[in-house]
Amino acid sequence: MTGLITLTTDFTSGSHYVAAMKGVILSINPLARLIDVSHSVPPQDVRYAAILVAESAPWFPPGSIHVAVVDPGVGSSRRSLYARIDGRHYLAPDNGLLSLLAAKSPPSCLIEVANREYWRQEVSSTFHGRDIFAPVAARLSLGLDSMLLGPPARDMVQLTWPEVRVMANRIEGSVRSIDSFGNLITDITSDMLSAVPRAESTTIRCDEHETAGIYGTYSDQPEMTLIALIGSSGFLELAIVGDSAAAMLGVRVGERVEVRW
Amino acid sequence: MTGLITLTTDFTSGSHYVAAMKGVILSINPLARLIDVSHSVPPQDVRYAAILVAESAPWFPPGSIHVAVVDPGVGSSRRSLYARIDGRHYLAPDNGLLSLLAAKSPPSCLIEVANREYWRQEVSSTFHGRDIFAPVAARLSLGLDSMLLGPPARDMVQLTWPEVRVMANRIEGSVRSIDSFGNLITDITSDMLSAVPRAESTTIRCDEHETAGIYGTYSDQPEMTLIALIGSSGFLELAIVGDSAAAMLGVRVGERVEVRW
Amino acid sequence: MTGLITLTTDFTSGSHYVAAMKGVILSINPLARLIDVSHSVPPQDVRYAAILVAESAPWFPPGSIHVAVVDPGVGSSRRSLYARIDGRHYLAPDNGLLSLLAAKSPPSCLIEVANREYWRQEVSSTFHGRDIFAPVAARLSLGLDSMLLGPPARDMVQLTWPEVRVMANRIEGSVRSIDSFGNLITDITSDMLSAVPRAESTTIRCDEHETAGIYGTYSDQPEMTLIALIGSSGFLELAIVGDSAAAMLGVRVGERVEVRW
Repeated sequence: MTGLITLTTDFTSGSHYVAAMKGVILSINPLARLIDVSHSVPPQDVRYAAILVAESAPWFPPGSIHVAVVDPGVGSSRRSLYARIDGRHYLAPDNGLLSLLAAKSPPSCLIEVANREYWRQEVSSTFHGRDIFAPVAARLSLGLDSMLLGPPARDMVQLTWPEVRVMANRIEGSVRSIDSFGNLITDITSDMLSAVPRAESTTIRCDEHETAGIYGTYSDQPEMTLIALIGSSGFLELAIVGDSAAAMLGVRVGERVEVRW
Repeated sequence: MTGLITLTTDFTSGSHYVAAMKGVILSINPLARLIDVSHSVPPQDVRYAAILVAESAPWFPPGSIHVAVVDPGVGSSRRSLYARIDGRHYLAPDNGLLSLLAAKSPPSCLIEVANREYWRQEVSSTFHGRDIFAPVAARLSLGLDSMLLGPPARDMVQLTWPEVRVMANRIEGSVRSIDSFGNLITDITSDMLSAVPRAESTTIRCDEHETAGIYGTYSDQPEMTLIALIGSSGFLELAIVGDSAAAMLGVRVGERVEVRW
Repeated sequence: MTGLITLTTDFTSGSHYVAAMKGVILSINPLARLIDVSHSVPPQDVRYAAILVAESAPWFPPGSIHVAVVDPGVGSSRRSLYARIDGRHYLAPDNGLLSLLAAKSPPSCLIEVANREYWRQEVSSTFHGRDIFAPVAARLSLGLDSMLLGPPARDMVQLTWPEVRVMANRIEGSVRSIDSFGNLITDITSDMLSAVPRAESTTIRCDEHETAGIYGTYSDQPEMTLIALIGSSGFLELAIVGDSAAAMLGVRVGERVEVRW
């Protein structure tokens, strides 16, 4: 155990909900080392959180513990999950939050967090982040065997994502997320593009906007140009050099993107 | 001493004022472990900070040190305070910031932070967070006896809060804070409601909006319904399931809330 | 080495870019202690970051490592720099980000970060924060000799700043930054003002707004008054007591400020 616990929530940075989770963790394991991945997930946006966790958590060392709480179903019968994926530990409500990550790399261990022995004694019906996930994470960081958390779970709730269609001279995907620079990150991977020419004969279209060629980096084109490139996470992205593509093009998550060559 | 120091300010996350405080602390105690509770208290909003500290700090382990700097009177004759409450250490300007917490749980020790020996050598008249509170917190985290910080203080500045009126078949309170989901957190406690029926015969009114019954959790009602429940901190709250009550109802802090049965 | 690594970026708090940098650092040095200075530098605003680093990093103890990534030229031929200044370690793209700090206190060591041995094996052309700066910072925190990072660099890219003109009975400067309270921080230092009377015979003018006298602290004047004072970093600042001068006066960075006596 590294004692590293990351937190991803929609509680807003600076809210007392985040502080309460940290306080509960540190009251159980005063040596836990807390990393805020994000508390600015849009309220109850499980899809956003699923992408964020899939992009963030695998960078942390094996043994790290990742707690993600975006939980519109708190207090209902939805289950709480523990998953071990690539040697890392994950705790989240079973609402699809971990499903994108698990689709890439299947869990070696999946457990329903059901054993109340490791929860706070008093469990509210509105704040499982503080009352279930925080104390369980703290105890895992102290070496608690995850098998004790509850019975094995056979499956998890899946989110569905638009399918990317790869054809002979065309790929149809969509904008999956928008980063903080306003770059449009698509669901088209570098693998799908491996046989696609980078030259200007390849066109990339999003809404009514089009650009030619797939470039290496932003500075390959002049300021204010729409450019396509393979981003740092291995997905095709569309960017306006030196500005926000999302703001300038008025494009949102879900918009179709077509690559032709 | 756990070496844990939490920070609550209105300096804005990412400002160099926060960084300066952290740098000063770590220059004195390189092993201090810093937790940001919040730097997004609305500028100079002592009441907001008082609620935030009262809701956050008690979750941290005994021995933790809580520094709260929302300080419109910096540089004036307002005192600086050290308080020990339930085994935790608090440092704040004497402007009421600690008074809500102290009303629930009286300080076992209250000291005026007056001994310049433990401050930065050069003290500005505009940034006591860096020049007084940070170095004092760092030295406390190294084991400094709080009795050395200055003379005992007999009292602290009190904030006044609207009174909750509990009557035979009616409770009148108000919205005390709005959380990051837009839920309206009132000043009516679960204790005050202990004898009140949860059934639909009980009505809760806020401004011109009304709802019937007190529920257990958000998912007890369909999306977009106004619902009343006891929140995770033990206060009556009004929420719109799956959305922001504050935004949808146009309600602000201070609005009256009436429970009738 | 203290193991302290601070991060300053324009990646936005809560973005997976920040998480990736932290994950890479902690995968190399699991005991590194990370401090977020800011991730809310306005996108690609190197000048803003240069001021922030100059105001923040010197407060941290010698031996601390400061990583600043605001990097519009990523993937181009711009160099990456390591600088040692006053016993602290700095890593940043060579785009002027460190030049304000270096102007005050010249680096004792300046190196081009060119030795790929200490980078991530796979280096993207869009995210050097993760692929170069994070792993190099982590290795420095483990004791790597900075001389091994690459060849000495003779100079760094300089940002140019408006010049402050100090005359017999007049100083002409400008607003260099605006803090989170809306205070207007100028580039006029307390040294430049050492011979200037604090009395009301001294007038300070910014745009069409004027105030008389230089005060000690905000509370020296009533609420809503425009006041001039020497701020906590040693620069002349203009503030509206209890409110935001930037918002109320409509003043932006770059606006001329004139002191007359």
